[in-house]
Amino acid sequence: MRDVYHDELDAITDQLVEMTRLVGEAVSLATQALLTSDLAIAESVIEGDEAVNLLHENVEFRTVDLIARQQPVAGDLRALTTGLRITSDLERSGDLAVHVAKLARRKYPACAVPGELQGTVREMGAVAAEIVNKAGDVVKSRDADRAAELERDDDVMDELHRTLLRTMLAPEWPYGVDTAIDLALAGRYYERFADHAVAVARQVLYLVTGESAVRG
Amino acid sequence: MRDVYHDELDAITDQLVEMTRLVGEAVSLATQALLTSDLAIAESVIEGDEAVNLLHENVEFRTVDLIARQQPVAGDLRALTTGLRITSDLERSGDLAVHVAKLARRKYPACAVPGELQGTVREMGAVAAEIVNKAGDVVKSRDADRAAELERDDDVMDELHRTLLRTMLAPEWPYGVDTAIDLALAGRYYERFADHAVAVARQVLYLVTGESAVRG
Repeated sequence: MRDVYHDELDAITDQLVEMTRLVGEAVSLATQALLTSDLAIAESVIEGDEAVNLLHENVEFRTVDLIARQQPVAGDLRALTTGLRITSDLERSGDLAVHVAKLARRKYPACAVPGELQGTVREMGAVAAEIVNKAGDVVKSRDADRAAELERDDDVMDELHRTLLRTMLAPEWPYGVDTAIDLALAGRYYERFADHAVAVARQVLYLVTGESAVRG
Repeated sequence: MRDVYHDELDAITDQLVEMTRLVGEAVSLATQALLTSDLAIAESVIEGDEAVNLLHENVEFRTVDLIARQQPVAGDLRALTTGLRITSDLERSGDLAVHVAKLARRKYPACAVPGELQGTVREMGAVAAEIVNKAGDVVKSRDADRAAELERDDDVMDELHRTLLRTMLAPEWPYGVDTAIDLALAGRYYERFADHAVAVARQVLYLVTGESAVRG
Protein backbone atom coordinates (compact mmCIF):
# COMPACT_ATOMS: atom_id res chain seq x y z
CA MET A 1 0.00 0.00 0.00
CA ARG A 2 1.21 3.47 -0.88
CA ASP A 3 1.39 6.15 1.77
CA VAL A 4 1.07 9.92 1.56
CA TYR A 5 4.80 10.33 1.92
CA HIS A 6 5.67 8.24 -1.12
CA ASP A 7 2.86 9.74 -3.17
CA GLU A 8 4.31 13.17 -2.50
CA LEU A 9 7.82 11.95 -3.34
CA ASP A 10 6.50 10.64 -6.68
CA ALA A 11 4.79 13.95 -7.36
CA ILE A 12 8.09 15.78 -6.79
CA THR A 13 9.86 13.36 -9.14
CA ASP A 14 7.21 14.02 -11.79
CA GLN A 15 7.86 17.75 -11.48
CA LEU A 16 11.61 17.21 -11.92
CA VAL A 17 10.95 15.15 -15.05
CA GLU A 18 8.66 17.89 -16.34
CA MET A 19 11.47 20.40 -15.75
CA THR A 20 13.85 18.32 -17.90
CA ARG A 21 11.19 18.23 -20.63
CA LEU A 22 10.73 22.01 -20.53
CA VAL A 23 14.43 22.88 -20.56
CA GLY A 24 15.06 20.31 -23.32
CA GLU A 25 12.40 22.00 -25.41
CA ALA A 26 13.82 25.41 -24.49
CA VAL A 27 17.33 24.59 -25.67
CA SER A 28 16.01 23.10 -28.92
CA LEU A 29 13.91 26.18 -29.66
CA ALA A 30 16.69 28.56 -28.62
CA THR A 31 19.03 26.79 -31.04
CA GLN A 32 16.46 27.10 -33.81
CA ALA A 33 16.10 30.81 -33.03
CA LEU A 34 19.89 31.24 -33.10
CA LEU A 35 20.34 29.39 -36.39
CA THR A 36 17.42 30.94 -38.27
CA SER A 37 17.43 34.32 -36.54
CA ASP A 38 13.81 33.87 -35.49
CA LEU A 39 12.82 36.60 -33.05
CA ALA A 40 9.41 35.16 -32.14
CA ILE A 41 10.90 31.83 -31.13
CA ALA A 42 13.65 33.57 -29.16
CA GLU A 43 11.03 35.58 -27.26
CA SER A 44 8.98 32.45 -26.55
CA VAL A 45 12.01 30.76 -24.97
CA ILE A 46 12.76 33.82 -22.84
CA GLU A 47 9.16 34.06 -21.62
CA GLY A 48 8.83 30.30 -21.20
CA ASP A 49 11.58 30.21 -18.57
CA GLU A 50 9.07 31.51 -16.04
CA ALA A 51 7.38 28.09 -16.07
CA VAL A 52 10.72 26.45 -15.24
CA ASN A 53 11.34 28.91 -12.41
CA LEU A 54 7.89 28.27 -10.96
CA LEU A 55 8.43 24.51 -11.03
CA HIS A 56 11.80 25.05 -9.36
CA GLU A 57 10.22 27.04 -6.54
CA ASN A 58 7.42 24.53 -6.19
CA VAL A 59 9.81 21.58 -5.95
CA GLU A 60 11.84 23.43 -3.31
CA PHE A 61 8.74 24.30 -1.33
CA ARG A 62 7.21 20.83 -1.46
CA THR A 63 10.49 19.14 -0.59
CA VAL A 64 11.23 21.26 2.43
CA ASP A 65 7.63 21.01 3.56
CA LEU A 66 7.80 17.23 3.28
CA ILE A 67 11.05 17.12 5.26
CA ALA A 68 9.53 19.26 8.00
CA ARG A 69 6.25 17.34 8.21
CA GLN A 70 7.46 13.77 7.81
CA GLN A 71 10.96 13.87 9.31
CA PRO A 72 12.32 11.30 6.88
CA VAL A 73 15.57 9.59 7.80
CA ALA A 74 18.57 8.21 5.93
CA GLY A 75 17.66 7.08 2.39
CA ASP A 76 14.43 9.04 2.16
CA LEU A 77 16.09 12.20 3.35
CA ARG A 78 18.89 11.69 0.86
CA ALA A 79 16.39 11.32 -1.99
CA LEU A 80 14.84 14.63 -1.03
CA THR A 81 18.09 16.56 -0.79
CA THR A 82 19.14 15.06 -4.12
CA GLY A 83 15.90 16.43 -5.56
CA LEU A 84 16.85 19.89 -4.28
CA ARG A 85 20.17 19.73 -6.10
CA ILE A 86 18.53 18.44 -9.27
CA THR A 87 15.96 21.21 -9.38
CA SER A 88 18.73 23.75 -8.88
CA ASP A 89 20.73 22.30 -11.80
CA LEU A 90 17.65 22.29 -14.03
CA GLU A 91 16.80 25.87 -13.16
CA ARG A 92 20.32 26.86 -14.28
CA SER A 93 19.94 24.86 -17.48
CA GLY A 94 16.79 26.82 -18.21
CA ASP A 95 18.73 30.06 -17.69
CA LEU A 96 21.37 28.90 -20.15
CA ALA A 97 18.76 28.16 -22.83
CA VAL A 98 17.51 31.71 -22.22
CA HIS A 99 21.05 33.06 -22.72
CA VAL A 100 21.17 31.36 -26.13
CA ALA A 101 17.78 32.85 -27.00
CA LYS A 102 18.88 36.31 -25.85
CA LEU A 103 21.93 36.06 -28.07
CA ALA A 104 19.64 35.32 -31.03
CA ARG A 105 17.47 38.30 -30.07
CA ARG A 106 20.40 40.66 -29.66
CA LYS A 107 21.75 39.84 -33.13
CA TYR A 108 18.35 39.96 -34.86
CA PRO A 109 17.78 40.46 -37.78
CA ALA A 110 21.36 39.30 -38.37
CA CYS A 111 22.23 35.68 -37.69
CA ALA A 112 24.90 34.98 -35.05
CA VAL A 113 26.06 31.77 -36.74
CA PRO A 114 27.93 31.85 -40.09
CA GLY A 115 27.03 29.13 -42.61
CA GLU A 116 30.08 26.99 -42.03
CA LEU A 117 29.37 26.72 -38.29
CA GLN A 118 25.62 26.14 -38.55
CA GLY A 119 26.13 22.36 -38.52
CA THR A 120 28.30 22.44 -35.38
CA VAL A 121 25.91 24.72 -33.47
CA ARG A 122 22.89 22.67 -34.61
CA GLU A 123 24.58 19.57 -33.28
CA MET A 124 25.45 21.27 -29.98
CA GLY A 125 21.78 22.15 -29.57
CA ALA A 126 20.72 18.60 -30.43
CA VAL A 127 23.23 17.02 -28.03
CA ALA A 128 22.19 19.45 -25.27
CA ALA A 129 18.53 18.51 -25.70
CA GLU A 130 19.37 14.81 -25.85
CA ILE A 131 21.44 14.93 -22.68
CA VAL A 132 18.75 16.66 -20.65
CA ASN A 133 16.07 14.34 -22.00
CA LYS A 134 18.17 11.36 -20.96
CA ALA A 135 18.67 13.02 -17.59
CA GLY A 136 14.87 13.11 -17.32
CA ASP A 137 14.74 9.37 -18.03
CA VAL A 138 17.37 8.80 -15.35
CA VAL A 139 15.41 10.84 -12.80
CA LYS A 140 12.31 8.77 -13.61
CA SER A 141 13.92 5.32 -13.83
CA ARG A 142 16.90 5.70 -11.48
CA ASP A 143 18.76 3.61 -14.03
CA ALA A 144 22.49 3.76 -13.23
CA ASP A 145 23.58 2.41 -16.64
CA ARG A 146 21.62 5.09 -18.42
CA ALA A 147 23.22 7.69 -16.14
CA ALA A 148 26.66 6.53 -17.25
CA GLU A 149 25.68 7.08 -20.90
CA LEU A 150 25.42 10.78 -20.28
CA GLU A 151 29.12 11.09 -19.57
CA ARG A 152 29.78 9.89 -23.13
CA ASP A 153 27.27 12.34 -24.57
CA ASP A 154 29.04 15.05 -22.64
CA ASP A 155 32.32 14.06 -24.34
CA VAL A 156 30.58 14.61 -27.68
CA MET A 157 29.57 18.08 -26.52
CA ASP A 158 33.13 18.88 -25.46
CA GLU A 159 34.41 17.77 -28.86
CA LEU A 160 31.85 19.98 -30.65
CA HIS A 161 32.91 22.87 -28.44
CA ARG A 162 36.56 22.30 -29.39
CA THR A 163 35.59 22.23 -33.08
CA LEU A 164 33.82 25.55 -32.66
CA LEU A 165 36.82 27.16 -30.99
CA ARG A 166 39.30 25.67 -33.47
CA THR A 167 37.33 27.07 -36.41
CA MET A 168 37.28 30.54 -34.92
CA LEU A 169 40.95 30.48 -34.02
CA ALA A 170 42.10 29.49 -37.52
CA PRO A 171 44.12 32.30 -39.17
CA GLU A 172 41.66 32.39 -42.07
CA TRP A 173 38.61 33.12 -39.84
CA PRO A 174 36.81 35.79 -41.88
CA TYR A 175 33.90 36.79 -39.62
CA GLY A 176 35.63 39.14 -37.24
CA VAL A 177 35.98 39.48 -33.49
CA ASP A 178 32.30 40.19 -32.77
CA THR A 179 31.07 36.96 -34.32
CA ALA A 180 33.84 35.02 -32.56
CA ILE A 181 32.87 36.49 -29.18
CA ASP A 182 29.18 35.66 -29.70
CA LEU A 183 29.96 32.11 -30.74
CA ALA A 184 32.43 31.60 -27.89
CA LEU A 185 29.70 32.63 -25.45
CA ALA A 186 27.12 30.42 -27.20
CA GLY A 187 29.56 27.51 -27.05
CA ARG A 188 30.02 28.13 -23.35
CA TYR A 189 26.24 28.18 -22.79
CA TYR A 190 25.77 24.81 -24.51
CA GLU A 191 28.69 23.29 -22.64
CA ARG A 192 27.39 24.49 -19.29
CA PHE A 193 23.88 23.36 -20.16
CA ALA A 194 25.24 19.87 -20.78
CA ASP A 195 27.30 20.00 -17.56
CA HIS A 196 24.20 20.75 -15.50
CA ALA A 197 22.24 17.96 -17.19
CA VAL A 198 25.09 15.52 -16.53
CA ALA A 199 25.18 16.73 -12.92
CA VAL A 200 21.49 15.78 -12.65
CA ALA A 201 22.27 12.23 -13.74
CA ARG A 202 25.26 12.08 -11.38
CA GLN A 203 23.08 13.06 -8.45
CA VAL A 204 20.75 10.17 -9.27
CA LEU A 205 23.69 7.81 -9.63
CA TYR A 206 24.96 8.96 -6.25
CA LEU A 207 21.56 8.33 -4.74
CA VAL A 208 21.34 4.84 -6.21
CA THR A 209 24.89 3.63 -5.72
CA GLY A 210 26.09 5.78 -2.85
CA GLU A 211 29.14 6.82 -4.85
CA SER A 212 30.06 10.43 -4.24
CA ALA A 213 29.05 12.84 -6.96
CA VAL A 214 31.85 15.02 -8.23
CA ARG A 215 30.98 18.70 -8.24
CA GLY A 216 32.84 20.95 -10.67
CA MET B 1 17.83 32.05 26.65
CA ARG B 2 19.19 30.56 23.46
CA ASP B 3 18.05 27.14 22.33
CA VAL B 4 19.79 24.45 20.33
CA TYR B 5 17.77 25.33 17.27
CA HIS B 6 18.91 28.95 17.12
CA ASP B 7 22.49 28.04 17.97
CA GLU B 8 22.51 25.71 14.99
CA LEU B 9 20.93 28.39 12.77
CA ASP B 10 23.71 30.79 13.82
CA ALA B 11 26.35 28.18 13.06
CA ILE B 12 24.93 27.75 9.55
CA THR B 13 24.94 31.52 9.05
CA ASP B 14 28.59 31.63 10.14
CA GLN B 15 29.41 29.00 7.52
CA LEU B 16 27.66 31.03 4.82
CA VAL B 17 29.66 34.11 5.83
CA GLU B 18 32.83 32.03 5.72
CA MET B 19 31.90 30.92 2.20
CA THR B 20 31.59 34.56 1.08
CA ARG B 21 35.02 35.24 2.58
CA LEU B 22 36.59 32.30 0.76
CA VAL B 23 35.07 33.07 -2.64
CA GLY B 24 35.93 36.76 -2.26
CA GLU B 25 39.55 35.79 -1.64
CA ALA B 26 39.39 33.31 -4.53
CA VAL B 27 38.21 35.89 -7.04
CA SER B 28 40.87 38.39 -5.89
CA LEU B 29 43.65 35.83 -6.22
CA ALA B 30 42.33 34.53 -9.54
CA THR B 31 42.36 38.08 -10.87
CA GLN B 32 45.94 38.54 -9.69
CA ALA B 33 46.90 35.27 -11.40
CA LEU B 34 45.20 36.41 -14.62
CA LEU B 35 46.83 39.85 -14.64
CA THR B 36 50.35 38.75 -13.70
CA SER B 37 50.27 35.30 -15.28
CA ASP B 38 51.11 33.67 -11.96
CA LEU B 39 50.74 29.90 -12.23
CA ALA B 40 51.23 29.15 -8.52
CA ILE B 41 48.44 31.51 -7.51
CA ALA B 42 46.16 30.11 -10.22
CA GLU B 43 46.76 26.58 -8.92
CA SER B 44 46.08 27.65 -5.34
CA VAL B 45 42.69 29.07 -6.36
CA ILE B 46 41.79 25.89 -8.24
CA GLU B 47 42.74 23.67 -5.30
CA GLY B 48 41.19 26.03 -2.76
CA ASP B 49 37.73 25.56 -4.25
CA GLU B 50 37.50 22.20 -2.49
CA ALA B 51 37.10 24.05 0.82
CA VAL B 52 34.14 25.99 -0.62
CA ASN B 53 32.54 22.79 -1.91
CA LEU B 54 32.93 21.12 1.47
CA LEU B 55 31.32 24.07 3.24
CA HIS B 56 28.52 23.95 0.67
CA GLU B 57 27.86 20.29 1.38
CA ASN B 58 28.07 20.83 5.10
CA VAL B 59 25.57 23.71 5.03
CA GLU B 60 23.18 21.59 2.96
CA PHE B 61 23.52 18.64 5.31
CA ARG B 62 23.10 20.65 8.51
CA THR B 63 20.14 22.57 7.13
CA VAL B 64 18.21 19.53 6.00
CA ASP B 65 19.06 17.72 9.22
CA LEU B 66 17.78 20.69 11.23
CA ILE B 67 14.55 20.80 9.21
CA ALA B 68 14.01 17.09 9.76
CA ARG B 69 14.79 17.15 13.49
CA GLN B 70 13.14 20.41 14.54
CA GLN B 71 10.25 20.72 12.08
CA PRO B 72 10.47 24.50 11.98
CA VAL B 73 7.47 26.41 10.67
CA ALA B 74 6.89 29.61 8.68
CA GLY B 75 9.68 32.16 9.26
CA ASP B 76 12.22 29.69 10.58
CA LEU B 77 11.64 27.32 7.70
CA ARG B 78 11.97 30.19 5.26
CA ALA B 79 15.32 31.21 6.80
CA LEU B 80 16.59 27.68 6.29
CA THR B 81 15.47 27.36 2.66
CA THR B 82 16.98 30.79 1.98
CA GLY B 83 20.25 29.44 3.36
CA LEU B 84 20.08 26.55 0.90
CA ARG B 85 19.74 28.96 -2.01
CA ILE B 86 22.54 31.15 -0.69
CA THR B 87 24.98 28.27 -0.33
CA SER B 88 24.15 27.17 -3.87
CA ASP B 89 24.86 30.67 -5.24
CA LEU B 90 28.15 30.84 -3.33
CA GLU B 91 29.24 27.43 -4.56
CA ARG B 92 28.69 28.68 -8.14
CA SER B 93 30.63 31.86 -7.40
CA GLY B 94 33.52 29.71 -6.25
CA ASP B 95 33.36 27.79 -9.53
CA LEU B 96 33.49 31.04 -11.47
CA ALA B 97 36.62 32.18 -9.62
CA VAL B 98 38.11 28.81 -10.58
CA HIS B 99 37.21 29.44 -14.22
CA VAL B 100 39.17 32.70 -14.10
CA ALA B 101 42.13 30.88 -12.52
CA LYS B 102 41.95 28.12 -15.15
CA LEU B 103 42.05 30.74 -17.88
CA ALA B 104 45.24 32.16 -16.34
CA ARG B 105 46.71 28.65 -16.17
CA ARG B 106 45.77 27.78 -19.74
CA LYS B 107 47.48 30.91 -21.09
CA TYR B 108 50.59 30.57 -18.91
CA PRO B 109 53.33 31.71 -19.43
CA ALA B 110 51.55 34.22 -21.69
CA CYS B 111 49.24 36.76 -20.10
CA ALA B 112 45.57 36.71 -21.15
CA VAL B 113 45.11 40.44 -20.57
CA PRO B 114 46.79 43.02 -22.83
CA GLY B 115 48.18 46.13 -21.12
CA GLU B 116 45.40 48.47 -22.11
CA LEU B 117 42.75 46.22 -20.56
CA GLN B 118 44.63 45.41 -17.34
CA GLY B 119 42.94 48.30 -15.55
CA THR B 120 39.44 47.19 -16.56
CA VAL B 121 40.01 43.56 -15.58
CA ARG B 122 41.66 44.58 -12.31
CA GLU B 123 38.61 46.66 -11.50
CA MET B 124 36.24 43.81 -12.42
CA GLY B 125 38.10 41.58 -9.97
CA ALA B 126 37.99 44.26 -7.27
CA VAL B 127 34.25 44.92 -7.76
CA ALA B 128 33.53 41.17 -7.74
CA ALA B 129 35.38 40.75 -4.43
CA GLU B 130 33.69 43.81 -2.97
CA ILE B 131 30.20 42.62 -3.93
CA VAL B 132 30.64 39.19 -2.39
CA ASN B 133 32.18 40.66 0.75
CA LYS B 134 29.20 42.97 1.09
CA ALA B 135 26.93 39.97 0.48
CA GLY B 136 28.68 38.35 3.45
CA ASP B 137 27.90 41.43 5.59
CA VAL B 138 24.27 41.23 4.48
CA VAL B 139 24.04 37.54 5.40
CA LYS B 140 25.47 38.37 8.83
CA SER B 141 23.55 41.57 9.54
CA ARG B 142 20.35 41.01 7.51
CA ASP B 143 20.62 44.72 6.71
CA ALA B 144 18.16 45.52 3.91
CA ASP B 145 19.76 48.89 3.07
CA ARG B 146 23.13 47.27 2.61
CA ALA B 147 21.53 44.65 0.37
CA ALA B 148 20.21 47.41 -1.88
CA GLU B 149 23.76 48.80 -2.26
CA LEU B 150 24.78 45.66 -4.08
CA GLU B 151 22.47 46.41 -6.97
CA ARG B 152 24.45 49.60 -7.57
CA ASP B 153 27.77 47.77 -7.39
CA ASP B 154 26.38 45.32 -9.93
CA ASP B 155 25.67 48.25 -12.28
CA VAL B 156 29.36 49.17 -12.00
CA MET B 157 30.25 45.60 -12.98
CA ASP B 158 27.92 45.72 -15.99
CA GLU B 159 29.52 48.99 -17.10
CA LEU B 160 33.03 47.50 -16.81
CA HIS B 161 31.85 44.51 -18.82
CA ARG B 162 30.53 46.82 -21.54
CA THR B 163 33.87 48.68 -21.58
CA LEU B 164 35.67 45.39 -22.05
CA LEU B 165 33.46 44.35 -24.97
CA ARG B 166 33.57 47.83 -26.57
CA THR B 167 37.38 47.78 -26.53
CA MET B 168 37.54 44.38 -28.18
CA LEU B 169 34.95 45.27 -30.81
CA ALA B 170 36.73 48.46 -31.91
CA PRO B 171 38.03 48.13 -35.48
CA GLU B 172 41.56 48.86 -34.30
CA TRP B 173 41.64 45.90 -31.85
CA PRO B 174 45.14 44.51 -32.47
CA TYR B 175 45.21 41.39 -30.26
CA GLY B 176 43.36 38.92 -32.44
CA VAL B 177 40.40 36.62 -32.07
CA ASP B 178 41.96 34.32 -29.44
CA THR B 179 42.60 37.11 -26.95
CA ALA B 180 39.12 38.50 -27.59
CA ILE B 181 37.52 35.11 -26.90
CA ASP B 182 39.48 34.64 -23.66
CA LEU B 183 38.59 38.11 -22.44
CA ALA B 184 34.92 37.71 -23.42
CA LEU B 185 34.79 34.54 -21.33
CA ALA B 186 36.65 36.20 -18.44
CA GLY B 187 34.20 39.11 -18.61
CA ARG B 188 31.32 36.68 -18.48
CA TYR B 189 32.82 34.91 -15.43
CA TYR B 190 33.14 38.17 -13.50
CA GLU B 191 29.65 39.26 -14.47
CA ARG B 192 28.13 35.94 -13.39
CA PHE B 193 30.16 35.96 -10.18
CA ALA B 194 28.65 39.35 -9.35
CA ASP B 195 25.16 38.14 -10.31
CA HIS B 196 25.39 35.24 -7.87
CA ALA B 197 26.67 37.50 -5.09
CA VAL B 198 23.81 39.93 -5.73
CA ALA B 199 21.41 36.98 -5.69
CA VAL B 200 22.70 36.13 -2.20
CA ALA B 201 21.83 39.63 -0.99
CA ARG B 202 18.42 39.46 -2.70
CA GLN B 203 17.63 36.22 -0.90
CA VAL B 204 18.36 37.91 2.42
CA LEU B 205 16.28 40.92 1.42
CA TYR B 206 13.42 38.57 0.54
CA LEU B 207 13.73 36.89 3.89
CA VAL B 208 13.69 40.18 5.77
CA THR B 209 11.06 42.09 3.83
CA GLY B 210 9.01 39.28 2.31
CA GLU B 211 9.42 40.81 -1.15
CA SER B 212 9.83 38.18 -3.82
CA ALA B 213 13.37 37.68 -5.07
CA VAL B 214 13.73 37.86 -8.83
CA ARG B 215 15.60 34.90 -10.29
CA GLY B 216 17.39 35.49 -13.58
